[in-house]
Amino acid sequence: MPIRRRKSRKIFVGRVPVGGDAPVSVQSMTDTPTRDPESTLAQIERLAALGCDIIRAAVDNERDIAGLKTICAASPVPVVADIQFDASAAVGAIEAGAAAVRLNPGLVRDARQLRPVAEAAKAHGIPIRVGVNSGSVGTEAVKKKMAQGMPHDDALVSALVEAALRQCDQLEKTGVSAIKVALKSSSVPVTAAAYREFARRTDYPLHLGVTEAGTRKRGVIKSACGIGALLLEGIGDTLRVSLTAPPEEEILTGLAILESCGLREAAPEIVSCPTCGRTEIDLPGLADRVEKLVQEIKNSGKRINLRRIAVMGCPVNGPGEAKDADLGIAGSRSGEQVLLFRAGKVLGAYPANAGFEVFRQELLKSCE
Amino acid sequence: MPIRRRKSRKIFVGRVPVGGDAPVSVQSMTDTPTRDPESTLAQIERLAALGCDIIRAAVDNERDIAGLKTICAASPVPVVADIQFDASAAVGAIEAGAAAVRLNPGLVRDARQLRPVAEAAKAHGIPIRVGVNSGSVGTEAVKKKMAQGMPHDDALVSALVEAALRQCDQLEKTGVSAIKVALKSSSVPVTAAAYREFARRTDYPLHLGVTEAGTRKRGVIKSACGIGALLLEGIGDTLRVSLTAPPEEEILTGLAILESCGLREAAPEIVSCPTCGRTEIDLPGLADRVEKLVQEIKNSGKRINLRRIAVMGCPVNGPGEAKDADLGIAGSRSGEQVLLFRAGKVLGAYPANAGFEVFRQELLKSCE
Repeated sequence: MPIRRRKSRKIFVGRVPVGGDAPVSVQSMTDTPTRDPESTLAQIERLAALGCDIIRAAVDNERDIAGLKTICAASPVPVVADIQFDASAAVGAIEAGAAAVRLNPGLVRDARQLRPVAEAAKAHGIPIRVGVNSGSVGTEAVKKKMAQGMPHDDALVSALVEAALRQCDQLEKTGVSAIKVALKSSSVPVTAAAYREFARRTDYPLHLGVTEAGTRKRGVIKSACGIGALLLEGIGDTLRVSLTAPPEEEILTGLAILESCGLREAAPEIVSCPTCGRTEIDLPGLADRVEKLVQEIKNSGKRINLRRIAVMGCPVNGPGEAKDADLGIAGSRSGEQVLLFRAGKVLGAYPANAGFEVFRQELLKSCE
Repeated sequence: MPIRRRKSRKIFVGRVPVGGDAPVSVQSMTDTPTRDPESTLAQIERLAALGCDIIRAAVDNERDIAGLKTICAASPVPVVADIQFDASAAVGAIEAGAAAVRLNPGLVRDARQLRPVAEAAKAHGIPIRVGVNSGSVGTEAVKKKMAQGMPHDDALVSALVEAALRQCDQLEKTGVSAIKVALKSSSVPVTAAAYREFARRTDYPLHLGVTEAGTRKRGVIKSACGIGALLLEGIGDTLRVSLTAPPEEEILTGLAILESCGLREAAPEIVSCPTCGRTEIDLPGLADRVEKLVQEIKNSGKRINLRRIAVMGCPVNGPGEAKDADLGIAGSRSGEQVLLFRAGKVLGAYPANAGFEVFRQELLKSCE
């Protein structure tokens, strides 16, 4: 079911297109000190191997800028400098080779601070990300709107959108039009409303995310709800899943969200039915085993030429439910056997362990 | 940001209202054999304690019906009988005390099979769930639409919606109007499109879910994308997250999706910032520790009177970003200290372990 994507202007972060007809890219942020290029580059390489398209690194001072220079020269993916308080660090980061800079309009508001950054970005032909978030958008602006009778969340949405529009406008006035925008809140409904409103009013490419999404489990669910809902509406050109967890998990979650929304092919997709009282085998164990096997094969550099693998617990429903699958494994009624099927046809019934080995062989036959 | 929910007719599954202005309820399905009431009831009690509102159990034969009778008599939450192949098992389940039955229109299509079930449901005043899914909707119907030039996914959406409408119509003709409907596919965009279309055309309450969502990690992400997107659009009256994992995880994920969408209060909400190069402390470790502490307090039966707890890595941004939090903990620049803050004001700086203990005490002060 192809999603009708919002038409946004296309910009380039290094060689990675963002917006227009470009695929939705996945980003993360290094959690190593930027002043330490060696550990930061090692992390970037691990993330790039997992599928990270663009990486961001915090740049606060001269030592970070020096580190960034080394990182940009060797990074396999474009590096975005994350600027919070010191706009002058942005100029240094651009000169050090950053593929883009992220500014926070809640912290860098003054046109006099912004101008040198805009000039440097223009001179180096790089885009600027306007990254608003609910934590740093002015409380005054929110309070003022609330005093006019606006409910808190509406006031916050309006303040997020206005802060982003204002900075985009400031940048356009200095001749910068390669802009992408994020409007993140830790509330999913506020985040969704802010992106929708901004999407309606501009053609800037949008960087999706829910900020301070939280601990591993919760953060994944909040991000999938918010980012997934926007993507399914056709909104979003690049994304970062923010987790209080290693950046590797942010990349894997981001890729899984894109695959879930049909915006990236999962090769292969693994479907597995929930457990119920009809299941006589250890279905979660079997499904985890299949997922691990697929990941191992992929990590070994092989490509699996299957569109869909099914792991089914219900011996009767199994082949029927999995008729769309290229390769499937289902438990038998007694729990002692597994049934294998390929393209909807039963291959045979086997004792559990032997069956898994046959499954593995069938899977390897489909690799190149 | 309150969601404007679709107006659906209200039905009752036992004492639990579904549809209308009722809160969105969370369901799961037992994975114990229904013929074994003891283990099934033990599981239902664990699930109910976690927040499960409605439970479903597979009913295929006489032994299941006998088990169901004992289960229904003692269950703390309403029990729905899941019927797949044998419509006559539905009549037995209704007589055994089921609070609702789920029928699969892909498997029970014949009006002659349906009529006795409808009559029994009417006589006992219970609703019927029409539960279509992509695995059992007729391939013929899909192929026919494709032969007329419809792309596969559109044909599938159309077939899901038509199969559900047809069975609702059959039921209405026998005088049954207490109906809820599910239209699940293992594809998130197909699922979303099918629910949207059906929601537009009827006022039946909707049971949301993505079927065969998959292994733990993937399944959570797919379900959050699909269910979250629909909920944020105002669609959905009850939900089940289908995971190839124990039903406890389905309930916790379902509740977290509702909380993420602002449809259920998280008490307290824990926000935590992602890690980045500015973080000098083990933020994932700290966030997990805080989450565990909160869960332990909740499990002990205490109520935490805080709306929001913040766990921040960035020593500079910490209190600023978390100004909305009632209680917060943030790492210091050196990584050796933590800062505590309450309602946006700094309480003090402490060595890491001592600081966590002060945090724990502050949290306990807010409990009753």
